[in-house]
Amino acid sequence: MAKVPSAAISRLVTYLRILEDLEARGINRTSSEQLAEEAQVTAFQVRKDLSYFGSYGTRGVGYTVQVLRRELRQILGLNRRWGLCIVGMGRLGQAIADYPGFSEIFELRGLFDRDPSKITTTFRGLQVESMDNLPRAIAERRIEFGLLAVPADSAQAVADRLVESGIKGILNFAPAVLEVPKEVAVENVDFLTGLSRLSFFVLNPKWREEMIG
Amino acid sequence: MAKVPSAAISRLVTYLRILEDLEARGINRTSSEQLAEEAQVTAFQVRKDLSYFGSYGTRGVGYTVQVLRRELRQILGLNRRWGLCIVGMGRLGQAIADYPGFSEIFELRGLFDRDPSKITTTFRGLQVESMDNLPRAIAERRIEFGLLAVPADSAQAVADRLVESGIKGILNFAPAVLEVPKEVAVENVDFLTGLSRLSFFVLNPKWREEMIG
Repeated sequence: MAKVPSAAISRLVTYLRILEDLEARGINRTSSEQLAEEAQVTAFQVRKDLSYFGSYGTRGVGYTVQVLRRELRQILGLNRRWGLCIVGMGRLGQAIADYPGFSEIFELRGLFDRDPSKITTTFRGLQVESMDNLPRAIAERRIEFGLLAVPADSAQAVADRLVESGIKGILNFAPAVLEVPKEVAVENVDFLTGLSRLSFFVLNPKWREEMIG
Repeated sequence: MAKVPSAAISRLVTYLRILEDLEARGINRTSSEQLAEEAQVTAFQVRKDLSYFGSYGTRGVGYTVQVLRRELRQILGLNRRWGLCIVGMGRLGQAIADYPGFSEIFELRGLFDRDPSKITTTFRGLQVESMDNLPRAIAERRIEFGLLAVPADSAQAVADRLVESGIKGILNFAPAVLEVPKEVAVENVDFLTGLSRLSFFVLNPKWREEMIG
């Protein structure tokens, strides 16, 4: 298999979102040109990203929206359910719990905080629990991903507890680089990286156009 | 100039964070191997990422932490000040305002919401303002980046207002693909992309190891 740039996975998510939007609008056919325009990449990039995973579409005819949508969902593992928990129920954890992104695919199954005063509160029908419940909750409720919303200075310690408890992936909202065993996946949702990228791209508009990925 | 993968910019931010951490710990010298280990990439990747921007370090000797840190700050445009505003002061906008990431580099200069009931509230010493103030605030307070924390269904309309008002970059927290003129930079901080990436990487651990970027 050809080496896949990690950024291609993010773009597949973008294409999937565009396809879902097209489908909601009753559109049945699309093209790499249309996907490219909406995703703000080149049509070549769209075709290349898809080519890592198989052969989709027909030259001169394009893609069937529903078929490509189903394929992308399968590639990304979004045709199944994942169990999630949030660790750290400060304002950030609360905003995450609020977010409309949870669904049948990403199901929130636990909220944890080390602060006993938070343990009586409820969000989205889930009561905040003590960190002591973490290992059992992860095993019994099949929680695969932990959303880490604790301050940067405790992020590594909490990540260690998630790993010991058998978590498979961590979505890290803390501005900290986590060290985890290589069998655990980590994705950082750190908006300082986003701000730094904006800073670079605003100062280097020409480079942005020449970027790949 | 060689084509720069967009993901390289994110990695530069990671290297910078590691260098800042090393400097805080009083460490003066580092190597591509050490940076690679902490950033969870290969040493070759570190050297390649840096090579897009110049020639750093000495073979067999490595890098001076302080020098490389300064170079990376300059490449990323983090040796200057940027003015920021948050648009949408629901729980998400409030959590963003709470975040400890704002600093001398990224300075919060305005909070906006269309809901008049929010306009009396204050976060971090800033009072929430009406959207009507947006164009004047952006011009007069030199606000360059807008942090978009509105629901997905109003994200494009609010982005349009930010663009009309002269914003240079948008950090988009809404799960929506924004269309903006190409001179405006957009970065998406959408945790559904992060969750989808976790899903893919957990299901494809071997691919993760073979990923580039």
